[in-house]
Amino acid sequence: MREVFHQSLEDVQTRLVEIAELVTIAIEKATTAFGTSDVELAEEVIDADSVIDERANQLDELAIEILARQQPVARDLRIVVTALRVSASLERMGDIAEHIAQLTRMRYPERAIPKGLKSTFTKMGELDVEVARVLTDLLRTQDLTLADAIRNADDDIDELHATVFEKVLSDSWRGEAAATVDATLASRYHERFADHAVSVAKKVVYLATGDWNADTEFEPLQ
Amino acid sequence: MREVFHQSLEDVQTRLVEIAELVTIAIEKATTAFGTSDVELAEEVIDADSVIDERANQLDELAIEILARQQPVARDLRIVVTALRVSASLERMGDIAEHIAQLTRMRYPERAIPKGLKSTFTKMGELDVEVARVLTDLLRTQDLTLADAIRNADDDIDELHATVFEKVLSDSWRGEAAATVDATLASRYHERFADHAVSVAKKVVYLATGDWNADTEFEPLQ
Repeated sequence: MREVFHQSLEDVQTRLVEIAELVTIAIEKATTAFGTSDVELAEEVIDADSVIDERANQLDELAIEILARQQPVARDLRIVVTALRVSASLERMGDIAEHIAQLTRMRYPERAIPKGLKSTFTKMGELDVEVARVLTDLLRTQDLTLADAIRNADDDIDELHATVFEKVLSDSWRGEAAATVDATLASRYHERFADHAVSVAKKVVYLATGDWNADTEFEPLQ
Repeated sequence: MREVFHQSLEDVQTRLVEIAELVTIAIEKATTAFGTSDVELAEEVIDADSVIDERANQLDELAIEILARQQPVARDLRIVVTALRVSASLERMGDIAEHIAQLTRMRYPERAIPKGLKSTFTKMGELDVEVARVLTDLLRTQDLTLADAIRNADDDIDELHATVFEKVLSDSWRGEAAATVDATLASRYHERFADHAVSVAKKVVYLATGDWNADTEFEPLQ
């Protein structure tokens, strides 16, 4: 029974990592599509989002089954509940990738990236992909130092987000209202993505170090 | 033991309703502050958000305690897991109210509502408050017909959201970039608020009618 249980918890972790990998691919494709007005790539992201949703649902069902059948307590219980929350955040990150892809498709064949903001959004997109990759590694390895890398990248993204508004609100901004709307929404999506990653990283760190379990030694999430 | 358990589940429901009430107050104050540039009211919303966060955390801790001590199965387990998810959505709705309040404060003493969009945002704000009230009633009474009212209001809000973009992108739009940014963000916040309410309503309905528990009779969430 104990062995079966640990197998199930490993299964939960494996599935979380798989979903994080799918989300990483989605955000990589979405930001590339947004940068290059590649409508086919955007369509791929939009089509693939249902797969992320389905995987997240399956993970939730597995977590509920573990709760029902194996009735974990203490740290094991926290792992399962944390997995439910992380899965919700990953699913939402997939939605945001889809929103960026939809913005690209909506403006096609025009460029969705407003003039004068291409390098800013390219940098934000690269940082978002980096954040997704590090988050996947964090879920896979439980190496808590990776959480710092996510927080740092999030700070950089927040600065770029502020830059977008400075530019849009400056006297030199020549964009029409459509460009202003696109810049506002796209910047918000790029920023939200990293916020979710930080929130997941916090949950993983809390699970490993939190006061509630202060009497347990740190163990990998498996 | 059984009686204690039902007491705990009732406690979960009572707390969810309390959080929903706090969120309703937050969205009512935030949309009013936004409409009237009332910076003091906006500050109240910003200050009160930590209370919502704290209540949501407390509810989560209670839910985890119930899982650990009482090891519910089947429908009871679903109730507890659903409560964890609903609490996350309510907490997020509180954040959105705070965002609207922050927008109000950022523009003060200027108006945050762009010219020409006052009636649209007033209507959206009223519908958001209505949605929050109905959602609170749904959580309190488990009257599933209320979910329809939430969906209908969400459709109306989506239409108003589209109206904002039509207006901003029309030739007659005279707003500067700052007004366009504000309209875009504010409209998105007003729309997201109702999306979360629909998502909570769906979870409550699934809990009552879902296939996973198709062999259980519908019982109130208590």
